Amino acid sequence: MSLESYMNQIGQQARDASRILAKASTKQKNTALFAMADALENARPRLIEENAKDMENGRIKGLDSALLDRLLLDDKRIDGMIEGLKQVASLPDPIGEISNMVCLPSGIQRGQMRVPLGVIGIIYESRPNVTIDAASLCLKSGNATILRGGSEAFYSNQAISTAVREGLAASGLPENAVQVLNTTDRGAVGLLISMPEFVDVIVPRGGKGLIERISKDARVPVIKHLDGNCHVYVDDEADLNKAFSIALNAKTRRYGVCNAMESLLVHHAVAVDFLPKLVTAFVDKGVELVGCESSQAISSSIGIATEEDWYTEYLAPKLSVKIVDDMDQAIAHINQYGSHHTDAIVSQNYSKTRAFMTEVDSSSVMVNASTSFADGFEYGFGAEIGISTDKIHARGPVGLLGLTSQKYIVLGDGHTRDN
Amino acid sequence: MSLESYMNQIGQQARDASRILAKASTKQKNTALFAMADALENARPRLIEENAKDMENGRIKGLDSALLDRLLLDDKRIDGMIEGLKQVASLPDPIGEISNMVCLPSGIQRGQMRVPLGVIGIIYESRPNVTIDAASLCLKSGNATILRGGSEAFYSNQAISTAVREGLAASGLPENAVQVLNTTDRGAVGLLISMPEFVDVIVPRGGKGLIERISKDARVPVIKHLDGNCHVYVDDEADLNKAFSIALNAKTRRYGVCNAMESLLVHHAVAVDFLPKLVTAFVDKGVELVGCESSQAISSSIGIATEEDWYTEYLAPKLSVKIVDDMDQAIAHINQYGSHHTDAIVSQNYSKTRAFMTEVDSSSVMVNASTSFADGFEYGFGAEIGISTDKIHARGPVGLLGLTSQKYIVLGDGHTRDN
Repeated sequence: MSLESYMNQIGQQARDASRILAKASTKQKNTALFAMADALENARPRLIEENAKDMENGRIKGLDSALLDRLLLDDKRIDGMIEGLKQVASLPDPIGEISNMVCLPSGIQRGQMRVPLGVIGIIYESRPNVTIDAASLCLKSGNATILRGGSEAFYSNQAISTAVREGLAASGLPENAVQVLNTTDRGAVGLLISMPEFVDVIVPRGGKGLIERISKDARVPVIKHLDGNCHVYVDDEADLNKAFSIALNAKTRRYGVCNAMESLLVHHAVAVDFLPKLVTAFVDKGVELVGCESSQAISSSIGIATEEDWYTEYLAPKLSVKIVDDMDQAIAHINQYGSHHTDAIVSQNYSKTRAFMTEVDSSSVMVNASTSFADGFEYGFGAEIGISTDKIHARGPVGLLGLTSQKYIVLGDGHTRDN
Repeated sequence: MSLESYMNQIGQQARDASRILAKASTKQKNTALFAMADALENARPRLIEENAKDMENGRIKGLDSALLDRLLLDDKRIDGMIEGLKQVASLPDPIGEISNMVCLPSGIQRGQMRVPLGVIGIIYESRPNVTIDAASLCLKSGNATILRGGSEAFYSNQAISTAVREGLAASGLPENAVQVLNTTDRGAVGLLISMPEFVDVIVPRGGKGLIERISKDARVPVIKHLDGNCHVYVDDEADLNKAFSIALNAKTRRYGVCNAMESLLVHHAVAVDFLPKLVTAFVDKGVELVGCESSQAISSSIGIATEEDWYTEYLAPKLSVKIVDDMDQAIAHINQYGSHHTDAIVSQNYSKTRAFMTEVDSSSVMVNASTSFADGFEYGFGAEIGISTDKIHARGPVGLLGLTSQKYIVLGDGHTRDN
């Protein structure tokens, strides 16, 4: 079969399965999630065996140790996948909820019903556990999924797929509710993102390069996450103890995460008081600092920041520091150089915090809290498919709701329209 | 200046204006809308003069009378634009609304704040009043707008633009809140839909050809409206009097609208009772009928429908008719051949109406009501920028809310994240 025929078949099967999933009850979907967990449990030896093939190929190809680590499936990670399935089963089912029902002058009632998007294509890189993460969230929200993992995890993903489909079959839902592509042909990605008749939305998970490529070529809407160039602004009316904790936490909790602070903005009136102690704390943790001239005048530990630095998401123990004249300058800087991901103000001034919340054009705006909280679990969603930096559809951390849509329903009793 | 420089300048100006609009108060925005209405009032002679140039050029180019009619600006249409501005001013302002605020275990509170999308690009065809419609809805929802009208309405749109900008200037909001492109170069559209740094969403308004072209080439999200291939399904448990009124209204209220019924599905058990009287009514109104073999056996006024007919949005006094075995077949037909726009069931059976609402994958699903109600005004939005056939972001009639986004806000008091 040609690649195109194969993808069309996958697409049609997904569309057909999505019709059944859309009307599946919460109980059916949860039964399937538990059955998938049981099937993974039973497949442990096979999963580890197949993963060993990927690990061996990875070592031959010379993948670095970080990549190899992400690729590894061991008992603990299999435990994690099984636990994840059970957690998703425990989440409330968003499908079918009817809201905003109003009576209108014509006599009709109209409201909105929450429904699945239909078919979701997931494109991801090395970590095989994404297969389970993504498939379970899509299933719970009534969507069929087509998954395309990285070629380096091919055998692992195929083994997971087999287990998932065993679980689905046992539960009575269609096996094609979750389909993992069984080809490493790169053309498959190009086809997957160009089938609006079969695929309703694409969620890419991986590095910025992957996401930019997919967004550029996709003929299907993409829920995407690009940069996380996050800022903390310390106002002249900040509680400086809170500011210290928040800035330190936002930068050093973890370096490689999208909600880490990459740029610190400090009001000039508190900079001399505030910065030196914080700089020492950063230097102790091994964080490299670059900054504007004013910041360098305050601390010799701060190197020179270039224009490029203000745009940069380091994802590393490195931070840019800028002294600003006032909050307005901070907001302008964030809106210009930031990535509209997550930005925080530390201030005790009510009016300023209110203005900052309104004027900063980011998916999450924090007041007196660390940027680290921008996360689906911390926001109480129970799970997260990713964080969207788009403004359309889902913005910010995306949980089950982001995988749904709302259609209008109208209730009449023989009503017709006059004019 | 090159076209590219011109478009970049327009884009940057829109982005700058959007920052000011995002924090504009409801009062400021309403003042601007009224000032725009005053400016249009004062510009009547100029509007009619400039429109006469477009009409003359149109006649020379041989535009047909329907197009020329759409192009015409007379006092009544100017009244309509002025009235429209005042109506939009009277609508509630969606911006700044905070919802879903919850306290989380970490101690933070998180909620969502409704915010503008930013910059909206509108691409439209002949009717110059769309300039005012679109600009006013975008302004009320805090968005800057870049408008690109049809070249046949160039002089009219420039004159409207001048009035709009006079109104904006008088109100103190930036003139660049609304920019009408002053070029007829087709390359401008290509650039407008490829500037994600300046434009957040594109709303094309016009024929299917325009919308398909734009959707295909856009590098920016598109809120689009494609086909309206709408169905009415008459169940065997329908109140046949209601079914008669609804079917007649859905088809014949207006023929050229997207929410008109294009295909009638009738349960076989009531077809012999129900169809003949309805067919007579349709024939009396001059509606051409094509149908399946079973329907032709019932009425000799029904011609042969081809496979293509089931996919067709006639936008004309023509209807396809199909006899179905049961509701499930009707739903399958609608989901396969329909355009996911608006579909209705007529039935007194509670369980069937409930299943139909869940299973029909359309932006509006009607129960015992005419498809004609699928409309922003009928849904109580007070205005409509269009009807979306997308599932992502806005689905169905799009009012002010469809031109907004929600960002997360987090309130802490020095909170940091532990793990």
